[in-house]
Amino acid sequence: MFENSERTSIESLGEFGLIDHLTNMITIKQPSTKKGIGDDAAVIDFEGKKALISTDMLLEGIHFDLAYTPLKHLGYKSVQVNLSDIYAMNGIATQVTVSIGISSKFPLEAIEELYEGIYLACEKYNVDLVGGDTTSSRQGLVISVTSIGYADEKDIAYRNTAREGDLICVSGDLGGAYVGLQLLEREKLVYIENPNIQPDLEGKDYIVERQLKPEARKDIVEMLKDLKIKPTAMIDISDGLASEILHICKQSNKGCNIYEDKIPLDPMTYETAREFNLDPTVCALSGGEDYELLFTIKQADYEKIKLMMDISVIGHITEPSAGCNLITKSGVVHTITAQGWNAFKS
Amino acid sequence: MFENSERTSIESLGEFGLIDHLTNMITIKQPSTKKGIGDDAAVIDFEGKKALISTDMLLEGIHFDLAYTPLKHLGYKSVQVNLSDIYAMNGIATQVTVSIGISSKFPLEAIEELYEGIYLACEKYNVDLVGGDTTSSRQGLVISVTSIGYADEKDIAYRNTAREGDLICVSGDLGGAYVGLQLLEREKLVYIENPNIQPDLEGKDYIVERQLKPEARKDIVEMLKDLKIKPTAMIDISDGLASEILHICKQSNKGCNIYEDKIPLDPMTYETAREFNLDPTVCALSGGEDYELLFTIKQADYEKIKLMMDISVIGHITEPSAGCNLITKSGVVHTITAQGWNAFKS
Repeated sequence: MFENSERTSIESLGEFGLIDHLTNMITIKQPSTKKGIGDDAAVIDFEGKKALISTDMLLEGIHFDLAYTPLKHLGYKSVQVNLSDIYAMNGIATQVTVSIGISSKFPLEAIEELYEGIYLACEKYNVDLVGGDTTSSRQGLVISVTSIGYADEKDIAYRNTAREGDLICVSGDLGGAYVGLQLLEREKLVYIENPNIQPDLEGKDYIVERQLKPEARKDIVEMLKDLKIKPTAMIDISDGLASEILHICKQSNKGCNIYEDKIPLDPMTYETAREFNLDPTVCALSGGEDYELLFTIKQADYEKIKLMMDISVIGHITEPSAGCNLITKSGVVHTITAQGWNAFKS
Repeated sequence: MFENSERTSIESLGEFGLIDHLTNMITIKQPSTKKGIGDDAAVIDFEGKKALISTDMLLEGIHFDLAYTPLKHLGYKSVQVNLSDIYAMNGIATQVTVSIGISSKFPLEAIEELYEGIYLACEKYNVDLVGGDTTSSRQGLVISVTSIGYADEKDIAYRNTAREGDLICVSGDLGGAYVGLQLLEREKLVYIENPNIQPDLEGKDYIVERQLKPEARKDIVEMLKDLKIKPTAMIDISDGLASEILHICKQSNKGCNIYEDKIPLDPMTYETAREFNLDPTVCALSGGEDYELLFTIKQADYEKIKLMMDISVIGHITEPSAGCNLITKSGVVHTITAQGWNAFKS
């Protein structure tokens, strides 16, 4: 990937030199960031608002495959999946910390590429990088991000506050990231068998991007605020629709009805799933990594929400004894089970 | 380590089952913790105080060796090294998040042991575990901790605010963690050569504990508060005294004189270093992992500080052109250089 002339060894810089090199261009954007990188801890002023903190770890070979994941995209995605958790609380993300464990065999240029993606995500989402840790790894690439944000207490959307009769809404479309992953995995196998064959991803940009470069839905949080809609409960879709709606229902002690024909699917997701002999609905329910927002609203807010581009009403919350159900296109009622991604399954 | 009858596979629990299992005993201690584990993000109320956030990553084979590190100690240490950063800001630590990447081949009982240490540290330091991530790792054990705390703005001790004439102080004693590590590494080699020989660590408990089970100096922050001393600058000693005092001097644009005969060394550190043909002063300067606090105070505070057990005054801050110097026992002046631990050195 890197020409010899472009390779700078990390060893030659050392840890502090590397940190300096990677962070000396940072300019602080958020007024709440009182101290960023350069001390024992970042200092943040939440000015009476509630602080929101979330963290995620991404490991090579488990969460990403460097065979088809450009480092810049990986950096970008690492930040996005974390910001998504802050938006899922109906909050505003303001800071991140990023810790990286990386083999000393990686050239500096590779780490720069990773950080380019991290900075791009920070820039685009108006978030400050305020800390982290950079260390050598004997094994694969390890990335741990903590995202920090705030919200007024009255605005925070928890998982356990959905009420009977509430409408279930989802942003964007689902299943694309999972189908994109199938495509990338297939092309990887083709490439391994014959390195002369170039990957055939033509016309599949959308679902490949859904997998490699997801966008956290800050815009949805802002639109809901503009429309004066407070979600009664909210979660982001990292493990698939089924797993997430079960979290809301279980924690709220409620049931739900989800209508298969209302689940938003992009035509490319649908077609490509079919090519792989996958049921597109199953991809949406169990695929995961879409990083869309799943939320519930009061019925009274329906008139406002129906004006919103990019929001689908897919069902409603019921009493707990009714269970969590998917009503298929043919009217059959299935109990929803979590087939969510299990990192511990071999 | 574990009998077959005690082994429960993680796979059988799944990620959510594992998280439930590990976290269902948590009780929230801090009034600022409004929401802990169980939603997309933790919710914290800093009530107008400044928030402090720091993060560290620990990787198997780089930061710890499971050959001689009990998992419970490792969990404890992972939290301590992070809390130490909050105390180094002169703050109060209140929450942590802990992310773990672990091979699915580890039995549940091993993870429970790791968490026992994490919970013990949280209990002892009155800190809430409010979030994290648990995932399978293809490679070694990966631990990432983010520590969260607060302070009044006027109390925060930065690195860049030391002034000429300030006294340089250090808590506890130095070099022990490094010498303890040498001992553990030696016994590991002996064991590899002949597994019938039991490790000979007799009488060496103190330095072995300094390495395996460090204690963050919350007590020093509390004592300084009681004595109404605000450090003019502070940092914790993770990379060795030399590296840390250079951070303070460089960021404060000052020089320093450190007196070798004032550097606190435990007799066991001294003797064991000698056994290894190591210079005890070098162990203190460059060893690292002591997690003591290094701070500067106004000369006017000397009368108060001299009453404090467990604090040594080791030198003073000078004008920048004087440089950063170590004055040896024989009166020779050496320029201090950072030989700090470099994770990228092979």
